Amino acid sequence: MILTDLEIAYIAGFLDGDGSIFFQIIKRPDYKQKFQIRTSIAFYQDTTNRSILEWLKRKFESGYIRDRKTGISDYTIVESKEVKKILTLLKPYVKLKQRHIVLGLEIIDKLENKKSDKDFLEICKLVDEFKKINYSKKRKITHEFVSQILSP
Amino acid sequence: MILTDLEIAYIAGFLDGDGSIFFQIIKRPDYKQKFQIRTSIAFYQDTTNRSILEWLKRKFESGYIRDRKTGISDYTIVESKEVKKILTLLKPYVKLKQRHIVLGLEIIDKLENKKSDKDFLEICKLVDEFKKINYSKKRKITHEFVSQILSP
Repeated sequence: MILTDLEIAYIAGFLDGDGSIFFQIIKRPDYKQKFQIRTSIAFYQDTTNRSILEWLKRKFESGYIRDRKTGISDYTIVESKEVKKILTLLKPYVKLKQRHIVLGLEIIDKLENKKSDKDFLEICKLVDEFKKINYSKKRKITHEFVSQILSP
Repeated sequence: MILTDLEIAYIAGFLDGDGSIFFQIIKRPDYKQKFQIRTSIAFYQDTTNRSILEWLKRKFESGYIRDRKTGISDYTIVESKEVKKILTLLKPYVKLKQRHIVLGLEIIDKLENKKSDKDFLEICKLVDEFKKINYSKKRKITHEFVSQILSP
């Protein structure tokens, strides 16, 4: 990942303008904790402007681009190691999503060091916290829900 | 207007992500050419994120912020001298809207040097051209329309 400071500042502005950082709790019956936490960074553009997403993908060397039927394309990175690298790079320049980055890095850090169901539940709480700063009303699987499964 | 290169790169990314550059031909019966060409740069955000628009306004020292009933705020600069300054600053860093900037600066330059109705009609043609790269379908007053008024 070779990026100049000016490119990183540009991407920080692009993320603040039109990008998204989010965490999801996903059911994984085969996982030890029955759930997985997925970290994502996503950039959106009209498919006619797909080239900027391709440029980002070349720069970040990870993630994938999808062209939606709505005429919108998105470039999404979900590998948590990559998300961590990118958030760390952008942190000094991001303005609007500064809280997202700080909390996001905390979640990824705790994910990397979790040892027990209790640790995992703590992380789910942080994901709930993250939800609040993202104003997402769609998320259904919350800490509450996971805790009912893990501690019957 | 004191901005570091990193701030300019950030704003270029923010404009590419979520901003807009546009030109409008507006009826002005009291003007010599009966029409005025309005140049605009606009940035949009949820009103909850108004602070970033306020930061931009402090940096650019011009324009105004409006809070819409839809929960969206916009920060718009229409003074063509200011628009010219800003486009010139952002030009080296903007990726997606590079064509907008080149054509936009050409329009402003021609506006500053126009001497006749013919010159003005040429500019209206460029505004029509600009319309095409912006995919705007709303604009009603085109070069065609102005030419009917100016050359009966």
